[in-house]
This record gives sequence, structure tokens and C-alpha cells, in this order.
Amino acid sequence: MSGTSASIAVLCGGVGAARFLRGLLEVVDAADVTAIVNTGDDTVLHGLSISPDLDTITYTLAGATDDERGWGLAGETWNAMAALARYAEVRPDGSTAAPTWFNLGDTDLATHFYRTARLAEGATLTAVTAEIAQAWGLGLRMLPVTDDRFRTVVTLGGDGHEAGREVTFQDYFVRLRHGVPVSDVRFEHDGAEPTAAVADALTSADLVVIAPSNPIVSIGPLRALPGIDEALRSRRDSVVAISPIVGGAALKGPADRMLAELGVDPSVAGVAGLYAPVASTLVIDTVDAGHAQAVEAAGMHCVVTPTIMSQPGVGADLARTCLRSAR
Amino acid sequence: MSGTSASIAVLCGGVGAARFLRGLLEVVDAADVTAIVNTGDDTVLHGLSISPDLDTITYTLAGATDDERGWGLAGETWNAMAALARYAEVRPDGSTAAPTWFNLGDTDLATHFYRTARLAEGATLTAVTAEIAQAWGLGLRMLPVTDDRFRTVVTLGGDGHEAGREVTFQDYFVRLRHGVPVSDVRFEHDGAEPTAAVADALTSADLVVIAPSNPIVSIGPLRALPGIDEALRSRRDSVVAISPIVGGAALKGPADRMLAELGVDPSVAGVAGLYAPVASTLVIDTVDAGHAQAVEAAGMHCVVTPTIMSQPGVGADLARTCLRSAR
Repeated sequence: MSGTSASIAVLCGGVGAARFLRGLLEVVDAADVTAIVNTGDDTVLHGLSISPDLDTITYTLAGATDDERGWGLAGETWNAMAALARYAEVRPDGSTAAPTWFNLGDTDLATHFYRTARLAEGATLTAVTAEIAQAWGLGLRMLPVTDDRFRTVVTLGGDGHEAGREVTFQDYFVRLRHGVPVSDVRFEHDGAEPTAAVADALTSADLVVIAPSNPIVSIGPLRALPGIDEALRSRRDSVVAISPIVGGAALKGPADRMLAELGVDPSVAGVAGLYAPVASTLVIDTVDAGHAQAVEAAGMHCVVTPTIMSQPGVGADLARTCLRSAR
Repeated sequence: MSGTSASIAVLCGGVGAARFLRGLLEVVDAADVTAIVNTGDDTVLHGLSISPDLDTITYTLAGATDDERGWGLAGETWNAMAALARYAEVRPDGSTAAPTWFNLGDTDLATHFYRTARLAEGATLTAVTAEIAQAWGLGLRMLPVTDDRFRTVVTLGGDGHEAGREVTFQDYFVRLRHGVPVSDVRFEHDGAEPTAAVADALTSADLVVIAPSNPIVSIGPLRALPGIDEALRSRRDSVVAISPIVGGAALKGPADRMLAELGVDPSVAGVAGLYAPVASTLVIDTVDAGHAQAVEAAGMHCVVTPTIMSQPGVGADLARTCLRSAR
């Protein structure tokens, strides 16, 4: 849309990243944007390969999401899941088959069907993701951070009966509704590597933006892959991060509690401590203006601007601010 | 319902078998009935394990089918399949991902989800099938003929562009709407064996009935498994078959054409030729009374009775006739 032809790579989790990308695409050509997306939340349910962050971004950018519910597709129906309740009643002890806690809408299923079938044909997740983006008419480049199996594992804390147990991210996030304390987060990668396209985008982009996503479980998995932090460090001056913490709280999800549980100050200063090694600039919300000095003290240049993207125009302005910060 | 406590094993394909079983359960206790069901049509689509004959029988006996459409569940919706069309448009050349020719209803999907997830947990198809039958409140014993991978492979005949090609049964039956001639049918079993429960049922049942299913692609796969024909032969006097051919035609599906294409007379006499080695009695419809002598000439005792189960009561009468024939 604007005259810029600077290429921009964005490190992405789910909803926060999707909203930032929506704003970004209002101010730059989609062809200049590469989204590098977390796959640590990916899971297999009912035999289907599910990539929640990729789909959240795709559906959001396609304008297909149910904005009132805040997730899933507009006009969605839930007939398959409703029918699954019959089987949940008969499954034998110890079986976790047919989980009904992970609600898959009927039309959303088509995306998982396509992804699963293409992967079974031997296509890479990178290829399938490009096809899905094309099916939804998206102009940006969408890249899963890796084509390898790669999973976020959460150790439950607190004193509940599941304390100490390691669970998948979806178990923690959806089944337990992120209502349980976390004592550790790790990433199972068994040799997983970023794709060549991701490595190339991180090197060649004129600007890298770390989207306002959970630093631990959305951006953390990307940074855990070999070479990503090194690539960011080597170009730290042109890496801008946006704080997902506003006024000491996460706008969505458990980032604030999770930071505190893992010993990180749940404030923009705490976020700055996490990102200072790999990004030169932290964009924080105006409500946190009083913390700008603490961000600078943590070693990052601080930019203060509205970041809450629930109103029209904020995302585009935020994107412009990021582009300016890097110049 | 009746006072009989004779145990009955029924060799089953899909729709014809389901209707016969429905009649049988009107006249005997469900606990005395074991359905031994073809799995040669089973397939994996979108990562989901699909067992068409097992599901047809389950849904029919549960009274859950759409009788007007003749298949699938009553009140079914098709939102997932409709959404899949978006992906069919972008799939690359040569990809068969996201086939939209195999129409899976939204609530039917729940059965495939459950089966797929339980198999992934390591449960046998036999165990999963029992759980699904329980979920639908069925009292009979439902047994897949094997827990092993086992597939019907059809060679296409005629002079079309696919002539000579080997395809899966679903490819032939659903994608090509069984509108293409067949030059060969074989079964890929790679060491597949009947389960112990099946072998036991075939030995211990007081009566074995071969349901009015396609002799080639529904009953054929069962008979191709090691030991089944031997078990039937050794108790041939108490094995009764019901002809799926009525007046020279199949009531449903391509059995008549398929028999002719494979060099078998598409008549009750042709069916008798196929079943004579393993069954002592063939039940044929009244319209075929004139062929009774030909059936006897083929080596089977012939019983003539109404077999078209589209009217209420016919299935139950047919079941009574089978029970009587064996005494």
C-alpha cells in the first residue's frame, strides 16, 4: 500500500501476531512480508495434523474469524464434536481417545484434512502452509519455523494432582484452560532445525519484528531452534520487539502468570530482559510509559505507542511505528 | 425375542447384511448373534481410519440411518466437506489430497475420529468396534474379520483411460461410482489373518449365514483370509447363504455387472456356483423360483422365499427361514 519496499520478517505466535500482521498489511505490500510462525503448539488429534498458530494467522488475515467469540471461523458449526460425546462416554479407562476438550469446528476440519493428507503424501509443512495461504487468498509469505517435529512441553506446577506432570502445550492451554501454574517449559526438538527459507528470511529481511506474542511459549520455541538467536543477535540493530505485556498483564492468554511462575518479572522490563540479547528496540504501550527507563536499563531502546489492537487503525499505526523505529 | 438360544454367525458386507441383521435381531436374542464383517473396503482418508461396512451395520442397527438417502446418518450435515472444496482448488498437480468425492458427514466424522484415536493408542480394531457398538447401544457382537491391514484391490477393465489400473475399492466404488468395468479383484493381505474371535465364532456357532452381500467384494475378502473357507467347508451342512442376486440383478451396487465381468453367470445359479463349496443351502427370492433346479444342479439345497427387505417384516421372515433351513 505504501511506497516502501523494505522486506519485513515477523516472528509469530497466534492471536497477537495475527492482529499485528493485519495492521502491517495495511501499510506495506503483502509481498514484502514473511511471517515465521511457531509450530511448538502443533498437535495430532484424531489422526489430524493441527497447527493452531498457522491457522489463527491464516483465518485472521483472510477476515474469516469470528470476532465476537475471538477464535475460530465465522459461521462455524460444531456437529462433529457434538457427535463425539457419544464415544467419550464409552471409552475404556485410561484412554484419551476422542478428546472433546479440543473443540474443532466442522469447517475448520477441512484445513486439518488438507494438511494431514498433504503431509501423508510427503509434502513439507512449508509447502502445505503456502498452499493453504493461497487457498485463502493471502499475499504474504507464511513459513512454519520448521518442517521437523517440534513440540512445546509444559511441566505443571502448583499442588494439584497433576503437579510435576509434563504435558503438551494444548493439554495445558486448552484442556486445563491455562489455569494451572507452570514450573517449567521445554522444547522437544530431537534435531529439529529452522527451514532454509526461515534462515534466509532472517538474514535477508530489512527488518525483523518480534510480534506481541507470549515470549515463553510462542516466541520461545522459535528461539530454541538452532541458529535463530544467533541470526537475530548478528543483526540486533534491525530487530524490533513488541511487548505482549501491557500494564503488567497479558492481553490474552497466560503470559503474565507464566512469566511470574518462571521467575521473570511480568512487566515490560521483564520482557526487555528476555529480548535484549536479540533485539535492539522494545515497543511498549502508553500505559507502560513509566517503565520506559527500566526497559532502557535492561539494554533496549524503548518506543512508547498504543499497542492494544482491539480498535481499528491501532495495528497499522503500530506497524508504522515499528518500521520507523528501525530506520 | 424368540425362545431359541442357537448361536448364529453372519458373514457380512454392508447394506444387505445390515438389513438382514435387522430382521434377524427381531427373531433371536442379540446376544446370540455375531456379525463377522468385511474390512477389505476400509481406507484411510485425511488421516482417518474409515470402516464403511462396520459403520453401515452399526448405524443401520441403531436405527440412525437416513432411510430416504439410503446411506449415512439421519439429520447429517456436510459442512466439513463443503469447506474442503477450497483446498481441492489449490492442490498441486498429482496430489490426491483432500478428496471431495468421498463424502463424510459431520456427525459421521465422530466415529472415524474415535476409531482413529483408539487405533493410535494401540487398541485392536476388534476392541474399538466393540466400543463403538456399545456407544450405539447394540446388543449383538460385531467383529471385524481381521485386525490386520487388509485391502480389496480392483483392476479396472474396459477401454477408458484408467483401464488396467489397480485402484482401491473406494476408488472404484465411490470415486468412479462403480460405473467402470472390472477385470480383476484381488485382496492384499500380506499375512493378514482372521482374529481368534472370528475363528472361534465360525467353529462354535450353531448356524452360519452368509448375508446377501456382494459375493466378490464383500464376502470374497472374508473368504480370501486363511482358514475361513476351510472352517466353512468343515461345517458346510449348517452354512446357509442368501443370494444377493434377485432376478439377475443386484438390489444395490454392482454385484451383477461385476459377476458378469469376471466370468460368473449373474444369476442365482452363478451365486450357487460360488458358494457351493462352503454352504449347503442357498436362499433365493421368489422371482427366481424358476432357477431352483439350476441351484440344486450347482450343488446346493435351494430355499425359495421373499428376500427383498424394503418392506417391514421381510427381513424377520427371511431370518426365520434361514434358521429353519438349518434344522
